Amino acid sequence: MSADPVLARLDADLPQALERLMTFLAIPSISTDPAYAADCDRAADWLVADLKALGATAEKRATPGHPMVVGHIGEGAPHLLFYGHYDVQPADPPELWHRDPFDPAVEDTPAGRVIRGRGAADDKGQLMTFVEACRAWIAEHGALPCRITFFFEGEEESGSPSLVPFLRENADELAADLALVCDTGMYDRKTPSIVTQLRGMLREEVVLRGASRDLHSGLYGGLAVNPIHVLSRVLADLHDDTGRVTLEGFYDGVAETPPEVRAQWDALAFDAEGFLGRVGLSHGAGERDRTALERLWARPTAEVNGIEGGYTGAGFKTVLPAEARAKVSFRLVGEQDPEAIHRAFVDHVERRLPPDVTAEFPMGDGAPATQMDVSRPAFEAARAALSAEWETEAVFAGVGGSIPVAGYFQSVLGTEPMLIGFGRDDDALHSPNEKYDLESFHKGARSWVRILEALTRG
Amino acid sequence: MSADPVLARLDADLPQALERLMTFLAIPSISTDPAYAADCDRAADWLVADLKALGATAEKRATPGHPMVVGHIGEGAPHLLFYGHYDVQPADPPELWHRDPFDPAVEDTPAGRVIRGRGAADDKGQLMTFVEACRAWIAEHGALPCRITFFFEGEEESGSPSLVPFLRENADELAADLALVCDTGMYDRKTPSIVTQLRGMLREEVVLRGASRDLHSGLYGGLAVNPIHVLSRVLADLHDDTGRVTLEGFYDGVAETPPEVRAQWDALAFDAEGFLGRVGLSHGAGERDRTALERLWARPTAEVNGIEGGYTGAGFKTVLPAEARAKVSFRLVGEQDPEAIHRAFVDHVERRLPPDVTAEFPMGDGAPATQMDVSRPAFEAARAALSAEWETEAVFAGVGGSIPVAGYFQSVLGTEPMLIGFGRDDDALHSPNEKYDLESFHKGARSWVRILEALTRG
Repeated sequence: MSADPVLARLDADLPQALERLMTFLAIPSISTDPAYAADCDRAADWLVADLKALGATAEKRATPGHPMVVGHIGEGAPHLLFYGHYDVQPADPPELWHRDPFDPAVEDTPAGRVIRGRGAADDKGQLMTFVEACRAWIAEHGALPCRITFFFEGEEESGSPSLVPFLRENADELAADLALVCDTGMYDRKTPSIVTQLRGMLREEVVLRGASRDLHSGLYGGLAVNPIHVLSRVLADLHDDTGRVTLEGFYDGVAETPPEVRAQWDALAFDAEGFLGRVGLSHGAGERDRTALERLWARPTAEVNGIEGGYTGAGFKTVLPAEARAKVSFRLVGEQDPEAIHRAFVDHVERRLPPDVTAEFPMGDGAPATQMDVSRPAFEAARAALSAEWETEAVFAGVGGSIPVAGYFQSVLGTEPMLIGFGRDDDALHSPNEKYDLESFHKGARSWVRILEALTRG
Repeated sequence: MSADPVLARLDADLPQALERLMTFLAIPSISTDPAYAADCDRAADWLVADLKALGATAEKRATPGHPMVVGHIGEGAPHLLFYGHYDVQPADPPELWHRDPFDPAVEDTPAGRVIRGRGAADDKGQLMTFVEACRAWIAEHGALPCRITFFFEGEEESGSPSLVPFLRENADELAADLALVCDTGMYDRKTPSIVTQLRGMLREEVVLRGASRDLHSGLYGGLAVNPIHVLSRVLADLHDDTGRVTLEGFYDGVAETPPEVRAQWDALAFDAEGFLGRVGLSHGAGERDRTALERLWARPTAEVNGIEGGYTGAGFKTVLPAEARAKVSFRLVGEQDPEAIHRAFVDHVERRLPPDVTAEFPMGDGAPATQMDVSRPAFEAARAALSAEWETEAVFAGVGGSIPVAGYFQSVLGTEPMLIGFGRDDDALHSPNEKYDLESFHKGARSWVRILEALTRG
């Protein structure tokens, strides 16, 4: 079946596709905050209804957390599993948004038209590129060219606690010949990419407690222990002066980037200055003796994502706090073992606790890094399809973010994942004023049509 | 004029005095939070009305911040200036209070009856001990035994920005023979004290900024600078391994405690274990080679009172924050110069800033330590009066907290301050469930009657 009339159909129906996306974006499906549980449920219902409108059998499946959405449509080989997530990040701080994050709109900007709203790029807009490609295909040809299973999650932004159990229980239904995941970005504005290397992640929270209540620093200061001081020491000691992470055994299983991959990356002539300059920075931090792309794609990291303790309101309160806490994430590469690093982190903290201070670790969940098997023909076929749509040679790239589902598809379902997405560096993922370029949305859907055609050709 | 009938009057009128205090405590006069500005004003109005009810000429005086209250009554020597503050600390976190902090009540506890509510001890309950003493004296004798000027401030908990300018402008009106300040505590449950040594304080806020917006730690982590890491280093480096503060020149002007004072403190047999045990601690922190009382009364300190950066809500957000901030207070002793220490702190931070991180210091206001002249006969007279009321020998003590007004009375008005208060260690100043013992309130007022009698005798 030919892609051309389907591409024309996508062009003609763009206004309707945008209208659907806006309805979807208006649902504040923030998975990390229990206050939005009903909205997560509503987003799942919206997806079920939309898949049914395509002619799929689709349903919401309960989990201990937010529901999964599973839909089936089409016949024939290959069997493709498509994954996306309908949950979004919190929109705080709200005062930094120039519009209500859940009242999305298409805006004209100097760099082109953008879809503005929380989730526009991560991941609602991206997942809809694939759904719209399928819709247009069915509209033109009456049926899809192969069997497709849709699988949408609602807990990606909160660590996917229900994902592995759900994959295990439904492995027969979900295992496919190839898993397509649309949750990544372009290499640059012009160059599409297939991500073949993903860092894993370990998420930690550490809570240090001292006195049984907040104390007056004038009455107790100098004699009573201050948990913020202890936490500062714990966090300051996470890195040495060269930017390396100091946890015992942290670099076990971290392989050097092979010379040929390094050469390919060097050939990309990555513009680190421009990359940092767009967010107001001019100097790279982190491991001094590594190239920028190595630091971003191939090296493990430790980052403090949040810290809190004592009085943080307006003015001053001379409190000596009973408690201080931090959230820390470790990006993992190669064969790094999240469980071993969790133990090393606990040990790092506990060795720095003075008498009277206790530590709790309420998180500690992680997923290892993932490496795709690019020798499969589907990878080269998809790369050619992307290159045709964007009129630029597509690349196999690494990515610093973690998409644990890719590893789970391999380990639990035995299904090779292929990560293709159309986000751009300036999409402001997880930040105020998140956007998704209208071009990403439109040419993204067109890309999927070409990929479907390429994967089912002959 | 005899104290005895006045003491009897205080005993008889305790219910009415409590009722007045409850009305005063119900006003949420939180000076650090602009949302409560009208309540601060209301608390000042309440005091003006109460002083007028005594027969004083009293008025509210405008400042650039919250108003001052000044009242005059009585004739003859000595001229006594009485100081207290009507503003209170914020009541957060509200969920840790077992009652509404601004719906005060007298509660029965295993340790006796207490007045529960924000400001009960700091400082509304304390300042009213003096006002009630005057009221009872006037009721019995028709007039006070000497000239008294009441001076109440509404910015003590927010650094008293208007205090020095106001003292300067009104020095002729406020200068007196002796300034009485009721904002301190007993030495222990049984032993009253006159505070003759006060630590000063320098308050700092440091705001570190990196990227122009929050970043996704997966996309930028390892390459972009993280202000929380930098702040952790800055704060961890404030103390060395022995607990000493590392700021350049920090200990300049810090004299060793004279042997005779040390001997007197040793004779107090301070129960450090009990002091710490009451707040769930068992080990002293801070300078290793100093006694507990030295650390609390005589040594300078650096304490982080609050820290904030990145995502601190429920769940996890893999953000690499644009900003991190901390509030730090330095308690000062001897001749330590707040301005020099401010410069040393700025230097300490700036020497630890990597490229791309900038620092702002929005505060940096301080007051030096204060030492009273205990050779004045008034000190011994007041000590005897306190000893009589509490049937326990009163002591001259140091205190770790800062009461900058004491130093300003010396330096701006040339008036020697005398600090007498009836708070107890477990009053939970600045903490949830603040209380003031009913005994503190009642015997506090009785103490002032005896002190007035002693200071005006013959």
